[in-house]
Amino acid sequence: MKRFTPEWTEAAPPKGSWRSVFKYGNPSEFKHPSRGWYEMIKQDFSMTDADFRTRRDEGLEQVRLNRPVTLEPRHRARFEDMVGAQNVQSDDYSRVRYASGKTTEEMLELRHAVAEYAADLVIHPRNKQDVQQVVAYCHEHAIPIYAFGAGSSVNFGVRPAQGGISLVLSTHMNRVLAVNELNQTATVQPGMYGPAYEEALRMAPELFHTAHRYTCGHFPQSFEYSSVGGWIVTLGSGQASSYYGDACDLVISQEYVTPAGTFRTHDYPATATGPKVNDIMKGSEGCFGILVEVTLKIYRAMPENTRYFSFMFPSWEAAVDASREVCQGEFGMPAVFRISDPEETDRGLKLYGMPSFVDAFLQKRGFRPMERCLCLGTAEGQRDFARNVQRQVRRICREKGAISLGGYAARKWERTRYKEPYMREDLMDYGVLIDTLETSVTWANLHRVHREVRDYIKARPQTMCMTHASHFYPQGTNLYFVFLMKTDGLDEFRAFHRGIIERICASGGSLSHHHGVGRMIGPWMEAHLGPEQMAVLRALKRHFDPRGIMNPGGQMGLD
Amino acid sequence: MKRFTPEWTEAAPPKGSWRSVFKYGNPSEFKHPSRGWYEMIKQDFSMTDADFRTRRDEGLEQVRLNRPVTLEPRHRARFEDMVGAQNVQSDDYSRVRYASGKTTEEMLELRHAVAEYAADLVIHPRNKQDVQQVVAYCHEHAIPIYAFGAGSSVNFGVRPAQGGISLVLSTHMNRVLAVNELNQTATVQPGMYGPAYEEALRMAPELFHTAHRYTCGHFPQSFEYSSVGGWIVTLGSGQASSYYGDACDLVISQEYVTPAGTFRTHDYPATATGPKVNDIMKGSEGCFGILVEVTLKIYRAMPENTRYFSFMFPSWEAAVDASREVCQGEFGMPAVFRISDPEETDRGLKLYGMPSFVDAFLQKRGFRPMERCLCLGTAEGQRDFARNVQRQVRRICREKGAISLGGYAARKWERTRYKEPYMREDLMDYGVLIDTLETSVTWANLHRVHREVRDYIKARPQTMCMTHASHFYPQGTNLYFVFLMKTDGLDEFRAFHRGIIERICASGGSLSHHHGVGRMIGPWMEAHLGPEQMAVLRALKRHFDPRGIMNPGGQMGLD
Repeated sequence: MKRFTPEWTEAAPPKGSWRSVFKYGNPSEFKHPSRGWYEMIKQDFSMTDADFRTRRDEGLEQVRLNRPVTLEPRHRARFEDMVGAQNVQSDDYSRVRYASGKTTEEMLELRHAVAEYAADLVIHPRNKQDVQQVVAYCHEHAIPIYAFGAGSSVNFGVRPAQGGISLVLSTHMNRVLAVNELNQTATVQPGMYGPAYEEALRMAPELFHTAHRYTCGHFPQSFEYSSVGGWIVTLGSGQASSYYGDACDLVISQEYVTPAGTFRTHDYPATATGPKVNDIMKGSEGCFGILVEVTLKIYRAMPENTRYFSFMFPSWEAAVDASREVCQGEFGMPAVFRISDPEETDRGLKLYGMPSFVDAFLQKRGFRPMERCLCLGTAEGQRDFARNVQRQVRRICREKGAISLGGYAARKWERTRYKEPYMREDLMDYGVLIDTLETSVTWANLHRVHREVRDYIKARPQTMCMTHASHFYPQGTNLYFVFLMKTDGLDEFRAFHRGIIERICASGGSLSHHHGVGRMIGPWMEAHLGPEQMAVLRALKRHFDPRGIMNPGGQMGLD
Repeated sequence: MKRFTPEWTEAAPPKGSWRSVFKYGNPSEFKHPSRGWYEMIKQDFSMTDADFRTRRDEGLEQVRLNRPVTLEPRHRARFEDMVGAQNVQSDDYSRVRYASGKTTEEMLELRHAVAEYAADLVIHPRNKQDVQQVVAYCHEHAIPIYAFGAGSSVNFGVRPAQGGISLVLSTHMNRVLAVNELNQTATVQPGMYGPAYEEALRMAPELFHTAHRYTCGHFPQSFEYSSVGGWIVTLGSGQASSYYGDACDLVISQEYVTPAGTFRTHDYPATATGPKVNDIMKGSEGCFGILVEVTLKIYRAMPENTRYFSFMFPSWEAAVDASREVCQGEFGMPAVFRISDPEETDRGLKLYGMPSFVDAFLQKRGFRPMERCLCLGTAEGQRDFARNVQRQVRRICREKGAISLGGYAARKWERTRYKEPYMREDLMDYGVLIDTLETSVTWANLHRVHREVRDYIKARPQTMCMTHASHFYPQGTNLYFVFLMKTDGLDEFRAFHRGIIERICASGGSLSHHHGVGRMIGPWMEAHLGPEQMAVLRALKRHFDPRGIMNPGGQMGLD
C-alpha cells in the first residue's frame, strides 16, 4: 500500500494574495516536511493522515483592506514631489505587504484576511536625500514613519502601529557604494539583501579592482531575505558569529537621518572621544532615525580553508562543558559552532535518517537517546589557524567524552541552513505551528534557563521543544528554543508564547540574543532593563525624535 | 677626563611638597636619562653640560594653597556623617594632590607652586553606598563632584574646575570582589590599581579557588599607577590590546551611581535589546555618574607560551604595509605589536646602544638611518596559536623586506615599558620637556596624518619627534607622537601643544585613541564629532545629571 503524503503547496501564491504577503522567501521555492517530519508530527501530536487531507486558511484571496487612507491628500502630493509619483503607493496590497513581518501571529491573521495595521502610504526613497526630505516633512507635520527593509522581522518591528508612512529601503537603496581594500571595509546602502551584498564582496576584484575576494561574515538564517540595514538596527547575529562577530561588531561607521538632524560617524577603528554615538545607534530599531549608509568590516574570503567537524557527546552537560572550554581556550574561535540538546539531537537523527547500525553502535558506546547531543561546526580563516582551531576543538571534545562523526553533518547543515523557514507554511496549512524564541545566557546560568524554559514548554501536552546554542563567546552563549504545537487558536498560541518569554525572563535569560525587541518583546523591556536604563533609552528617544514620529506605538517599549 | 653627568634627583620628594604631587609613580623610584639620551639632547638642543648644572623649579616646598574652603561647614558635617570624619579632608596638600593629573602643563605649574584648581573637600568613600549618599546629597545641594582614581590623567580629567568634592575611589574601593571562573569574569571595584588587580588574577587559584591562573589583558604604560575604573571611563587601551582588546572591549557589565539613579547592567555576553546602556557609560569620564563596580572579561594566563619577535624594515611604508597584512591575515592577532617610524627607530638604536658592526651590517643590507623602521611584539594565547601567529608575522615581514632581529628587543622593551614616564621630571629639572599626543587613523589615512603632524612638530627648530603605532585593528591603527623640546615658557609650550592637536584634526586623525578627552581636548569635540553627535552626548548629560554636578567645567566639552 502506498503511503499517504499530504498535498503540500507546490504553486507560488497568487499575485496580490494574502499568502503572497506571509509566505517566506522566494514565492516559487518550497521545502516540504520530509517523510520523517511528517510521521513524527503525526505520532507526537496524535494526528492521522485524515488531518492532512484538507489545507485550511490558505490566504489565497486577494488582499482587501477596506480601510481608507486617512492622511490628508495634500501630504501625498508633497511626497510625490519629493520622491517621484511612482515611488508613492497607497494600494491595499502594498499597504499590507510593507506592514507585515514573519511572526506566527501575523501569519495566522493574514490567513484569515486580517491586517490590523497598515500604513497610509508606502514610500520608496531613491537615496538618502529623499529620506532626509521625507523625515523632515514628517517631523514638521507629525506623521509617523516606519522603516521596512526586507520584512523578516519576527517581533512586529515593521508594524505601522499608528498608520503614516512605510518607508521601504530595499527598493532603491540597495547597492554597495564602495569597497576600501586598504581599510578592509565596504560602504553599503541599508536596503541591500544579504546574497547580493555577499556576491558583490566575492566579486570585489572584478567590481572594485581589489586584490582579494571578500566575505561579509554575517549569515543569519534569514540571510536570503534580510537586509544589511536590518542586521544592524536590530542587532542581528549570523551563524558564523563566533568567529566574525555579531552585526554590531561589524559596524565601523553609520549615517543616520533623524528628526534631530543627519550625521555620519567617523571611520576610525577605535577612539577615546567619549561615549560612542556609533554604538548608541546600533539596535535603535527605527526609533531614533533611519540608517541610510553603513561602513562595515569585511573579511578576506578563503573558503578553501574551511574545515568541517561534528561530534556526538554523551550528554548536554558534556557538550556545554566542551563548548565553554573551546571558547576560553585562547586559540581563536570556530566560525560556525552549534550544540543541540537531547530532544533536538534525537529528532534530528530521526529526521535526517541515521542508519540503524550507526544508532546501535552509538548506543552501545553509551550515547543514549534523549541524553546524547550533537555538535557541529566549521573553522575558517588562514589555513594553519583554521587547522589549529579544528585540532583544538577535536582534542577538547574528546576529553569531554565525545566521538567525532567527521564533517558530513556540518556540510549537510550548511547546504540546507536557509531553507528551514520554508516548512512553516506547509505545516500551518494543517494547523501545526513552528515558532522560535531565543535568549542569551552566561555559562553559569545556562542550565537553569534551559531547564526552566524547557519545563514550561514541555508542560503543554504534545509540544515539541528542540534547543540549541549557536553563538558563542568566552562569557556565555545563546539558547534557541524551537517549539512545535498543534493549535488553531490564536489566543492560545499567544498566551503560550508570552508564557515562554515570561519564563525566559524569570529564569535569568536575556529578552533577546539576536531577534531584537520590536513590539512583541517591548512590554518586558522596562522590567528587564530596570527603570533607570529604560529612562536612558527614553531620553535618547526624546532627543532624536521629540515629536514621536519614528516607529511609534510600542516599539522597544519606548512609548 | 671623567665625563660630566648631571646630578639627577635621587631622593624621594619631601612629604607634603609640590614635587610629591607631580612626581610620577613610586616616590622612591627613578629612571634617569641614559648617557645616550643625555648626549643626544645636548646635541639636538645645542645645550652644554653647563645647562645641566643647576636644577630649577623643583617644587620642593610644602604645598600651600592660600585659598579657603568655600563650601558651607554644614555640608562637611553631613559628609562626615556619611563616610566617617577620617574620610573627609580639607588640608591644602590633599586638595591639591587629588586635583592633579600628569599633564606637562600641570607639572610646570606645580613646579612654580601654582595650583589653579582645587576641590573644597576630598572624600574617600568606603563603598558604593557611600558614593550613593554623596552623589544624592551633592545633587540635592548642587555641589560639584570630581572622581579621582589613580591620577594618571593627561588631559585635566580630574581637575575640580568648579571646586566642590574630589571623590577618591582608590583609597578604599580597591578590591576584586569575585572571580567567576565559569563565566571567565572578575568583578572589581573601580579604585583598584593595575598591578594589584593583575596579581589577584594570577593568584586566583589561591584566592578564589579557580582551576586556572588569569590575566586582565590590559597593560597601558601607566599600568602601575592607573585604576581599573579609570581604564574604562576614559576608554584606555593597553599595550597588548591588539589581542586582548581595548578597555571598552573588556567590560561585561557595570554599576553606576548617577544623579538620575543607580543601576547595574546585565552580565550577558551579547544581547539584542536595543542600544546598550553598558556601552553608553563607557568613556563617560565622570560626567554621567560614578562607576562603582565593574565585571570584566579575564583571560587564562599562559606566559609560558609567549613568543617574542622583532624585525627591521627598510622603510616606514614597508613597516605599515606589513602591519596591515598582519591585521588582515585572519590568523589571529599578535598581543603586543609596535612599529617605530625612522626618527624613533634611529634614536632608539642610539639610545639603547646598537653595536657599530650591527649598524654597519644593517646599512650594507640597505637598512639606512632615518629610513629603517623597527618592529617588535609578542604572540600570546594557546601554544600552537601563538606559534602560528609568530610564524605568519615572520612570513609577512620578510615578504615586505624586513629582517628578523630575534626576540631580544621585544624582551628588553617589555622589561622597561612602565619606566619611561620617570624620565620626565629629570629632564624638566633642566628645562627639557617630553610630552605625547596620540590619535587613531584608518590605514588609508595613516601616512597623511603621520606626515602632516610630524611636519608641524619638526617645523619648530630643535624639536624631536618620535612616532610609533602600537594598537592594531584590521581597519587601522593609532599613531603616538612623542616630542621633546627645550622651553621654559608655559605659554609657548601650550601654544605648540594646541597646534599639534589642531594639526591632528586637520589631517583627519581622531582627537584621541586612548588618552580620553578631559578638559584638554574638550574644546575640539564639537568640531570633531559635529553638532549632531555632540548634541547626543549633551542630551545624555542632561538626563543623567540635570543639575550639572558631575565633573562640570569643560570636561569632554559638554558644558
